[in-house]
Amino acid sequence: MTTDAKILSALRANPGGVSGAQLAEQLAISRAAIWARIEELRKVGFVIEAGPHFGYRLVDEPDALLADDLLARLGETKVIGRDIRVFEETTSTNDVIEKLARDGVKEGVVVFAESQTKGRGRLGRKWLSPTHKGLWFSVLLRPDLRPQEATQLTVASAIALRRAIKTVAGLPAEIKWPNDLLLGGKKIAGILTEMSAEVDRVRHVILGIGVDVNQDADEFPAELRKIATSLKIEAGEEIHRAELATEMLRELDFDYARICGGKFSRVADEWEAGCATIGKKVSVQMGARLVRGGAESLDDDGALLVRTEHGHLERVIGGDVTLEK
Amino acid sequence: MTTDAKILSALRANPGGVSGAQLAEQLAISRAAIWARIEELRKVGFVIEAGPHFGYRLVDEPDALLADDLLARLGETKVIGRDIRVFEETTSTNDVIEKLARDGVKEGVVVFAESQTKGRGRLGRKWLSPTHKGLWFSVLLRPDLRPQEATQLTVASAIALRRAIKTVAGLPAEIKWPNDLLLGGKKIAGILTEMSAEVDRVRHVILGIGVDVNQDADEFPAELRKIATSLKIEAGEEIHRAELATEMLRELDFDYARICGGKFSRVADEWEAGCATIGKKVSVQMGARLVRGGAESLDDDGALLVRTEHGHLERVIGGDVTLEK
Repeated sequence: MTTDAKILSALRANPGGVSGAQLAEQLAISRAAIWARIEELRKVGFVIEAGPHFGYRLVDEPDALLADDLLARLGETKVIGRDIRVFEETTSTNDVIEKLARDGVKEGVVVFAESQTKGRGRLGRKWLSPTHKGLWFSVLLRPDLRPQEATQLTVASAIALRRAIKTVAGLPAEIKWPNDLLLGGKKIAGILTEMSAEVDRVRHVILGIGVDVNQDADEFPAELRKIATSLKIEAGEEIHRAELATEMLRELDFDYARICGGKFSRVADEWEAGCATIGKKVSVQMGARLVRGGAESLDDDGALLVRTEHGHLERVIGGDVTLEK
Repeated sequence: MTTDAKILSALRANPGGVSGAQLAEQLAISRAAIWARIEELRKVGFVIEAGPHFGYRLVDEPDALLADDLLARLGETKVIGRDIRVFEETTSTNDVIEKLARDGVKEGVVVFAESQTKGRGRLGRKWLSPTHKGLWFSVLLRPDLRPQEATQLTVASAIALRRAIKTVAGLPAEIKWPNDLLLGGKKIAGILTEMSAEVDRVRHVILGIGVDVNQDADEFPAELRKIATSLKIEAGEEIHRAELATEMLRELDFDYARICGGKFSRVADEWEAGCATIGKKVSVQMGARLVRGGAESLDDDGALLVRTEHGHLERVIGGDVTLEK
């Protein structure tokens, strides 16, 4: 953790205030250095009172994503979020991670952007990422998987995001296979899993995650209002983005450890329980082919198993899934 | 084709000589421009005689890879080699193609390097690429395949390279699944297939190809002499690298069209006929697991089907294959 992250942790742990002397001792730096860091934190929007009796006290926090703040909130994780970087604007956080991956950066690094100019979804589709309204971030992973097993990570991400949304916003999102989260049938979050691979092994995977958090209804383009929503619209109040972000990273870290530990079956069980697709009649457009039938369960590698009208079991790895009425 | 490529084509088509006037008319540029281009070609090593009776005549060619020369030799292809770039030195031609891919360059572009400082083989292994001694090149493809079908391209490349080696060097290479070509049991060429993909579709594939052409035995490191060889060693004479390179591109173009046309079964049949692995007892190290048995055939997606001692058929997608005695 950086010094700023440690100061924020100490301030949060002591809502009544903590003295400069205590902070200096705890961080093993001078009181003057503490004072200088507090000034920097104030500049990025933290309201920190100082007084002779209570020392320093955190009064208010900015609605902005700040790497030090996120690190302080997150605390210890196994892999994901040990390195966090925040950009005010970028083309796509997946692009930034791709560069880091090629530079040999360790797995677990997370890149957030307050806005993306070229956010993207599956199959090259555009993803809107308005400034300070959502969480647009990407995670670098280097799992020991084969290319066809990468779907496991999409599945794991879906349940991790679902738990985080439940914890922070109190809302019960449903999963739509393979990569969407829905609230009341409308899209609230999407996961784009990209990989670089040899034929028989994955080199790295990039999880790209977009969550619509604090948009109002009129901030969505007209053509999206019927199919997309935000946590604020559904919860009726603003959601603290930094809190949601760190909860998501914590849950992703937990599920990534399950995947790496060969526990995909547990991930799959939880996924099926939270899924809007399983048990429903679906039609799946797979390239030129249309598969229709009942979505039964997940296969070992994250594929969707669909029982067709003829009783045949189809493995669906990708494609566009539509729930039939 | 560039002007230089057109001039080289015309010189080769007229071994007795072609006049400056004819060239100028054919290319619709001035005789002075023709003369200037001829001077440039001489600078890079082409020996071109000029005389009042025969015009210009190509007498000798440099042992170097030159984009214009390769384009002129190659002629028309469907996809592969319509854009050729040659570097004197690079880290790895796959790295160069990766950058081009991200910049949106069309499929079929080929990058050659006279030497690579960080040539690589499968599983991150090092690949030696001594200057002007071999063919080290990469091809960008954007096929409509799923990640697990990318092996088809390795298989197609193997038979294409095999035919080109037969045509140009007269040598009958054997294929070792999935990505090596052997002469007399020693490695002569390798294919590294890398991809960038979403979970359900390939974005692009990079074929990285290394062929040991003109090394003498003492130019191989001692530890490689028993397992690697060059076309020169096996054929007993130098091989013209530009001729071999363009023959390989022509054959790759042919097989890529077969894959894109859904004709993988024909590719697979030819592969099986030229394969040192099929019909042999093999052991395959797949991660921690060792599979032993008889290699029977190729599966639809390029996987090797191995019949184990217990009669079970194993699909081998990657791993290290050893032929048992």
